[in-house]
Amino acid sequence: MIAENDRGFLLGDGLFETLLVAKGVALWRIEHLARMAKSAVKLGIAFDADRIGVAVDDVIRKSGDGAQVLRISLSRGVTERGLASDSDESTLSVSILPFDTSKIGQPLSLATSSVRRNPSSISDRHKTLSYINNIHAAREAKARGADDALILNIDGLVASTSIANIFIVTGKQLATPPEGDGVLPGIMRKHIIENAGNFGYSVSVRSFERDELQDASAVFVTNSLRFVSPVRALDGENLQSGDVTDLMKALLADAKVQCGANIVENGS
Amino acid sequence: MIAENDRGFLLGDGLFETLLVAKGVALWRIEHLARMAKSAVKLGIAFDADRIGVAVDDVIRKSGDGAQVLRISLSRGVTERGLASDSDESTLSVSILPFDTSKIGQPLSLATSSVRRNPSSISDRHKTLSYINNIHAAREAKARGADDALILNIDGLVASTSIANIFIVTGKQLATPPEGDGVLPGIMRKHIIENAGNFGYSVSVRSFERDELQDASAVFVTNSLRFVSPVRALDGENLQSGDVTDLMKALLADAKVQCGANIVENGS
Repeated sequence: MIAENDRGFLLGDGLFETLLVAKGVALWRIEHLARMAKSAVKLGIAFDADRIGVAVDDVIRKSGDGAQVLRISLSRGVTERGLASDSDESTLSVSILPFDTSKIGQPLSLATSSVRRNPSSISDRHKTLSYINNIHAAREAKARGADDALILNIDGLVASTSIANIFIVTGKQLATPPEGDGVLPGIMRKHIIENAGNFGYSVSVRSFERDELQDASAVFVTNSLRFVSPVRALDGENLQSGDVTDLMKALLADAKVQCGANIVENGS
Repeated sequence: MIAENDRGFLLGDGLFETLLVAKGVALWRIEHLARMAKSAVKLGIAFDADRIGVAVDDVIRKSGDGAQVLRISLSRGVTERGLASDSDESTLSVSILPFDTSKIGQPLSLATSSVRRNPSSISDRHKTLSYINNIHAAREAKARGADDALILNIDGLVASTSIANIFIVTGKQLATPPEGDGVLPGIMRKHIIENAGNFGYSVSVRSFERDELQDASAVFVTNSLRFVSPVRALDGENLQSGDVTDLMKALLADAKVQCGANIVENGS
């Protein structure tokens, strides 16, 4: 339970991470915790890696053997009234739920959101407990029959979806928007940028407009739970469905190195 | 206590209001609840005015006789995983704390924030539980020795502070930015706009730049707890300190009509 005066509940004043757990291993764990630590420093939230590590291990140990989604929530804790008030003791909550791995790699449709990303916004650049704009974008998409929202930034450039980073493919060339375009620095995005060469691709981190999604040979989105999901349609129009299964296989192979087993039936 | 899987804690998925309670009366109560109701409809959060009214009355009845700050927090509740997931039952939390009325009307200093308001952002236009951008702006201001942040919008126009709306004064003419500039529609702001004529002022709801704060005969900020606070300095430079005590007296008189007593010692 969380205190009613915890700033996580009162003000969305905190951070979170969601990790896929397979065979008792939280995938890309170091990268997730490094991202949270960096944001915690920026926001002045007490971060204790050992405390989080113990809690994560404890939750995983008590969980089942199947795939799970683990969530780490870290709020500033309880403080005096006042937005700038501080606390030495953050509130940590770690939870785990079964995860349906059949969602991994499923193609999806996007609908362009009315919400724009703002590069000066903390909630647009960090994985904070203040997620209402992503929620609103996701609800808009759902109301229009789409699986997720395409979120542009205030300059009309492509930023991301409500829960994933976005890439466009042209042959063996990938492009994804820079963080400065109002992008949350995703773990899977980072992994692809750093390892694309090993996967047979080159990556350009550059700005692009919505039109380029329609011209690309393929579009896909990435996150820590679903890896690579091809985008099959945007605002009701089909996109080119270039094959990105080679990328997915490479990512699943990396996951297998971490946990020692296939995550999905056909994982290589 | 709040469940660890409540969306208020997990995602800042909810709304709040803070009201000043004097002599057992929550001031501008109808206006606060109307604002929350309107935002709840926009966000699809279950809103039950009777349920909230009963909880508010109950908390006030049990509180002391002095001035109090009452907070109503309403989250979407507990749902399945997924940003667009819905709940029929919102979570309601009502709390009350003593309020130091000597803060009412105290002059304050502002420091311009790196955070910009974004008119397409839900968290910038509604009083949501996703408050991290205001927190960051307030922390920046505190680090620079100022009392609050001046927040511009993405076009460089003045929007508000981290906790208050802003007005500039030129003689008997007031100006305050329109909601479309990325402004949270404050209750005290609304009251002044609607009643300025009774107070001997006219009001223009229009965009303005930071420079106009330096040219104005007075600058003040408004919120439901502190009414009117003159701004004495901006980024370390003194502003003109025109007298706005007549406005403050008019607002305190309106508050007295509601609760039947003076809120501050020298309240008229």
